[in-house]
Amino acid sequence: MHAKAIVSTHPDVKGNTNDALILCIEECYSCAQTCTSCADACLGEKMLEQLTQCIRLNLDCADVCAATGSIATRRTGSNEQLIKQMLISCEMACRLCGEECARHASHHEHCRICAESCARCAQACQEAARSIA
Amino acid sequence: MHAKAIVSTHPDVKGNTNDALILCIEECYSCAQTCTSCADACLGEKMLEQLTQCIRLNLDCADVCAATGSIATRRTGSNEQLIKQMLISCEMACRLCGEECARHASHHEHCRICAESCARCAQACQEAARSIA
Amino acid sequence: MHAKAIVSTHPDVKGNTNDALILCIEECYSCAQTCTSCADACLGEKMLEQLTQCIRLNLDCADVCAATGSIATRRTGSNEQLIKQMLISCEMACRLCGEECARHASHHEHCRICAESCARCAQACQEAARSIA
Amino acid sequence: MHAKAIVSTHPDVKGNTNDALILCIEECYSCAQTCTSCADACLGEKMLEQLTQCIRLNLDCADVCAATGSIATRRTGSNEQLIKQMLISCEMACRLCGEECARHASHHEHCRICAESCARCAQACQEAARSIA
Repeated sequence: MHAKAIVSTHPDVKGNTNDALILCIEECYSCAQTCTSCADACLGEKMLEQLTQCIRLNLDCADVCAATGSIATRRTGSNEQLIKQMLISCEMACRLCGEECARHASHHEHCRICAESCARCAQACQEAARSIA
Repeated sequence: MHAKAIVSTHPDVKGNTNDALILCIEECYSCAQTCTSCADACLGEKMLEQLTQCIRLNLDCADVCAATGSIATRRTGSNEQLIKQMLISCEMACRLCGEECARHASHHEHCRICAESCARCAQACQEAARSIA
Repeated sequence: MHAKAIVSTHPDVKGNTNDALILCIEECYSCAQTCTSCADACLGEKMLEQLTQCIRLNLDCADVCAATGSIATRRTGSNEQLIKQMLISCEMACRLCGEECARHASHHEHCRICAESCARCAQACQEAARSIA
Repeated sequence: MHAKAIVSTHPDVKGNTNDALILCIEECYSCAQTCTSCADACLGEKMLEQLTQCIRLNLDCADVCAATGSIATRRTGSNEQLIKQMLISCEMACRLCGEECARHASHHEHCRICAESCARCAQACQEAARSIA
């Protein structure tokens, strides 16, 4: 990911990046990939019927992370109110998904990795939301 | 759109659809298309520099609508808390985008159509959010 | 969906819409919703382990349909080569997903509805691709 | 990004990752972010009317990269034909967008960074497509 490099060249940003928001953008794209992968790995497991809630939360979380990453990337004009709202939504999606993944972490390595990714992204969303007035 | 037909066949739904939510799903997909189209039509206008805030809000709104439409479609397991949060986020995205589009509605027919689509989607999100405990 | 209404107001289109492409845009958004719903309904079925390939193709098809619907919506500047390539990709995604859904259509009503949606979208993609030089 | 870590834990993969595909997944997510950012930075530039084709190709490329990254992530069941088709589509999207960005690279640093991201992603898609039978 090169979010800091490209966002810093925006004509309205001119190098003054909000680093909490940049970190959050990178975590959102990364967590979207991790959740997509965890949903698919769960689908390939033998104990699949125990993982349906996990798959569902994975898919929801991937959708929210992808939308939040795009929206938080945009700096032209202003839409702080919506960015903040989506950061709070994304923190919730990551917390709910991460808690469910954590329940399966001892049996499924992909759930352990996904729980960590969700925890990092939730934290990054919280800090980015605080950084926006 | 055939959201009602397919959601009603879900094994956990068995015909007992939440019609406020179904309408909202259809409005979300429709508004994602309308906002994508309005952003692109604004980009083709001669007075483009007056429409940059409109394009930005259109793109953000399309992202939130697409994510909300997907998440609200899922009925396996449960994730009501996140659905409700995203419906509120989507109502905000549609309201902000619709207000900006309404400012350009007398000059640009695509902004007039998009403002109406955003208003319908915001209303549908509000009613769907109320329908979820 | 109001794809024809809004695309026809684009400054470069001025009412001269490509109706095969407009129909295709609407089928893409509709099929993205249907496939998202079918994946989720499959996930809620008791015979889930027989539906994992169906869920996987549903999720892939929803992704391609959503991207194709957005790309085919844009008329500013030109990108016909990519639109045509994506219409061909989307026809393939819909054909593969529809064939798998058709295998489960007699057991699962959501698969029957989804197979029909995929067939309509594949047909619309083929005709839209032909309409582009 | 942690694509290799999580994909390698998939029950059907068991550590035997296709490293060309993994690299491609990471480039797709990264390029989706870069193109979203470049479209938005172009929208904030004074010489905006010279950048409308660039914005359009950026938005199209972001859509294809996001869909390709998700689809290439999935390993349950099989869909190699579609993965390959989407890798070829994504290579085309990245090549077309990268060529346009390269035209503006001397004036706009975000276009220079985006042209490089598109070139890396096009190359990664080509190599990943070759790695699939």
